[in-house]
Amino acid sequence: MSRQLKLCGWGYEGDGLTGAEEAGLLETYAGRFDVDAFERTKMPAAEQIELSAPRIAPPDTLASICTTSPVDRLLHCYGQSFPDYVKTFAGDFSTAPDVVAYAKSETDVANVLDWAADAGAAVIPYGGGTSVVGGVEAVIGGSFKAAISLDLSGLDQILEIDRTSLSARMQGGIKGPALEAGLRQHGLTMRHFPQSFELATLGGMIATRSGGHFATVYTHIDDLVANVRCLTPSGVVESRRLPGSGAGPSPDRLFIGSEGALGIITEAWMRLRERPSFRAATTVLFNDLETAVDAVRLVSQSGLFPANLRLLDANEAGLSGFGDGISHLVVLAFESADHPVDAWMARALEICASCGGRYDADAAKDPDSHKSGDTGAWRTAFIKMPHFRAPLVSAGIIHDTFETAITWDRFEDMHTGITTKMHQALKDVTGKAGYVSTRFTHVYPDGPAPYYTFVGLGRQDALLEQWSELKMRASDAVIEHGGTITHHHAVGRDHMPWYERQIPMAFQNTLKAAKQVLDPAGVMNPGVLVAAR
Amino acid sequence: MSRQLKLCGWGYEGDGLTGAEEAGLLETYAGRFDVDAFERTKMPAAEQIELSAPRIAPPDTLASICTTSPVDRLLHCYGQSFPDYVKTFAGDFSTAPDVVAYAKSETDVANVLDWAADAGAAVIPYGGGTSVVGGVEAVIGGSFKAAISLDLSGLDQILEIDRTSLSARMQGGIKGPALEAGLRQHGLTMRHFPQSFELATLGGMIATRSGGHFATVYTHIDDLVANVRCLTPSGVVESRRLPGSGAGPSPDRLFIGSEGALGIITEAWMRLRERPSFRAATTVLFNDLETAVDAVRLVSQSGLFPANLRLLDANEAGLSGFGDGISHLVVLAFESADHPVDAWMARALEICASCGGRYDADAAKDPDSHKSGDTGAWRTAFIKMPHFRAPLVSAGIIHDTFETAITWDRFEDMHTGITTKMHQALKDVTGKAGYVSTRFTHVYPDGPAPYYTFVGLGRQDALLEQWSELKMRASDAVIEHGGTITHHHAVGRDHMPWYERQIPMAFQNTLKAAKQVLDPAGVMNPGVLVAAR
Repeated sequence: MSRQLKLCGWGYEGDGLTGAEEAGLLETYAGRFDVDAFERTKMPAAEQIELSAPRIAPPDTLASICTTSPVDRLLHCYGQSFPDYVKTFAGDFSTAPDVVAYAKSETDVANVLDWAADAGAAVIPYGGGTSVVGGVEAVIGGSFKAAISLDLSGLDQILEIDRTSLSARMQGGIKGPALEAGLRQHGLTMRHFPQSFELATLGGMIATRSGGHFATVYTHIDDLVANVRCLTPSGVVESRRLPGSGAGPSPDRLFIGSEGALGIITEAWMRLRERPSFRAATTVLFNDLETAVDAVRLVSQSGLFPANLRLLDANEAGLSGFGDGISHLVVLAFESADHPVDAWMARALEICASCGGRYDADAAKDPDSHKSGDTGAWRTAFIKMPHFRAPLVSAGIIHDTFETAITWDRFEDMHTGITTKMHQALKDVTGKAGYVSTRFTHVYPDGPAPYYTFVGLGRQDALLEQWSELKMRASDAVIEHGGTITHHHAVGRDHMPWYERQIPMAFQNTLKAAKQVLDPAGVMNPGVLVAAR
Repeated sequence: MSRQLKLCGWGYEGDGLTGAEEAGLLETYAGRFDVDAFERTKMPAAEQIELSAPRIAPPDTLASICTTSPVDRLLHCYGQSFPDYVKTFAGDFSTAPDVVAYAKSETDVANVLDWAADAGAAVIPYGGGTSVVGGVEAVIGGSFKAAISLDLSGLDQILEIDRTSLSARMQGGIKGPALEAGLRQHGLTMRHFPQSFELATLGGMIATRSGGHFATVYTHIDDLVANVRCLTPSGVVESRRLPGSGAGPSPDRLFIGSEGALGIITEAWMRLRERPSFRAATTVLFNDLETAVDAVRLVSQSGLFPANLRLLDANEAGLSGFGDGISHLVVLAFESADHPVDAWMARALEICASCGGRYDADAAKDPDSHKSGDTGAWRTAFIKMPHFRAPLVSAGIIHDTFETAITWDRFEDMHTGITTKMHQALKDVTGKAGYVSTRFTHVYPDGPAPYYTFVGLGRQDALLEQWSELKMRASDAVIEHGGTITHHHAVGRDHMPWYERQIPMAFQNTLKAAKQVLDPAGVMNPGVLVAAR
């Protein structure tokens, strides 16, 4: 039986933090902000929420897959961003789609796109609804008569498995757990675990260039895509399934990162691997952030290609409730389906030691070490994090993250700049000192992908404005220091002003021209990547 | 002093095969085709070649960088393909550009593009002139008044080195040897050695998605590009230099593989590495091609990431004059600037042994093994190969190569199909059995990039027609068996009919739309990637 998604909160009803965990979380933050307790806002019940009447009705031919029921419209209104939660708590669903269409096949998708073009309606592709950048909210500009949320989770099949080439053809709406469960039967895994894994769909991961499990080499889903089949309003575009090609600019790379603005990724051949049987993981502690960064840089440039190489600064570790609160942590892991990884781990630890890193040499040899100690604690915290948002918002705590990538030579300057600016911004906006922490989610030989968390004590009646100001300051800082506005969270609607500052104008114009070819009526996810008409 | 390039033949006057080497080469082929000796055509002297009068004259402002001298026009007429050589020997330079412009700066490039648009002339970007696919020949369609070859080799500077991020900003016209010599002073290397290394330019490598030194992981130059600066007729497009980004479709990926049809890559930040100090290389012999392929597949899927993993079938090894003529060879090498690679090599050899591979375990431990034995012989042959073309063409021997990529599950079927069809084609076209051999130049976890050589005894008065028929049959076979028309030789003009069969029409239309934005007058390398207007 299908389970009921939460209207506000991560995942399904019944999942999440226990009452005690939630109380503990808020108690920690009460301590941090030196308040006795938080006043909590309550989520309005679905039946209390006012929705405007749907502005269009699906044609009879699509009646069986379309609904205008309030619950479906509410559930498809928002993603999982901080402002999404604030608006949900406020009962503001003014941007709810008029209709939700549940596609079960590519034909359904084609029919909905045709209908949308005829009806002058915008189409908002909806995979797992895990966007944290306004990617699924129907803020579509004034020229559309209505908005249709096109739910793709019915396209959930593994269509073909090629064991020899370690590849599978899968539908775009398949969610992380179903995908991995299907592959596991063949001893295979895609091994792409974004934090949104539980709900995120394959097509959504590709459309947003999601960042996955591997901290080095195969970081973005881009590297795992062997071909895409994309249904655009102008018809199907399907590239050849190839391990590599040099025939002109890559067609796949136009659709990887297209965020629903060009069409719907209905299928893709994905590169897989055998399930790892050899593992080594450990945590290395550093006194100084600078030497920890050096160690991560040197390991990333060593050609050892660890599966995990994530740096957590002392603040980040502390905020997550582990580490000693003073040391900076590097979570280091190797895995293989082919060979023991001791030689790899030994050399990586040598590099860390040469930079002053401290570690438990025995723990590194424990095959279950990725589940124990600080490494295991981090793993557990990482999985639970999405459940923190609802209680924090209800308590009026502004807690959000942003992420970027930058070359090593500019990291220190950017990091100092961002940290200083965000501390100042928190003071300016909330009137009180807040918290800023960082980790590296992925690292490349030429630079890290730093991920920032900021936390401030907000005002319940001004959360959205306060957050907007903080987000603007953060995004300005990222762009001014030479970073990318997003390494793996995507652009959505929230990042558009900074995306337009980052991307060369002539490239934006070519993207607009591509959209004109593939989506001449401009109905696909308007306002994302290309400014709404 | 700058050296004189050969009008016909690889590289510079004075370089190439000795008289004895050339005689030996032809003797070998005489034996193979059972003829006493070859009648040799002679290359006409430059002054004997008739050139039509230039159809335009450069404006005074560009006079200092432009020339209409016959030698310059002749030298910029062709690339290095088999038909290029045949036409050169025939003294047919009817497609020679009217003017050669030697750009020394980005401003020069901009001025030439402006002039071309005003004058109704086509611009043919010319880096090292090493195209084997008609990429630099001014076959431009009837709507242009003239053709300008824009020689970029004056843009030859390393502009900036970032030792921390192992990166450098370099101009697009810098050639392989100068690039490596400049980096070597800093202990760095780009480690991208296409067979055309001696002459190829950085911008040309990026524009054609060249395939390099590494047989796994970082195969295409694509992976080494941190940003590009491209001067288009609509202005400069420069992406941010980033180690990674998830902000929409990658702007760089539009220009990587753009083959001069969108603009000129004037600069790029490239990812480098430290010069390797640890090495292991050896050759593994197999009795059956099938088990050799299995071994290569398993090593490519092992996560060991060898620098070299090249399979040569017995024919290929035999044609190149080494191996035992019966065994199939796998050239296997690891290298690192960070750590001894023994554990890596040992495991890769275990995999090879499990597939029936035979090797000299001691040789694998020799740090100079990449320069000795069959591995070294292959290395030497690889570097010399470009020098074979002129004597072979002069002797009327049709000797050409084509390359593709395909997933493992479809390789055997494709390989049998291509081999059978090419043997038949050689018989049909030349009336005599020929030779077909294969190697893998690069391998991916999901499939190899097979590279085919075909050799037939041609007729001096019909070489071009014979080659065209063989090329057509080869390209048809590649496309019909699901491959890509090119893995790293690019599309150029020669591959256009098959490129149009391979690439989804809607993507071709978006490329056309992109060209309309960036090159509204359509002057950039017309006929390449986008059909000439």
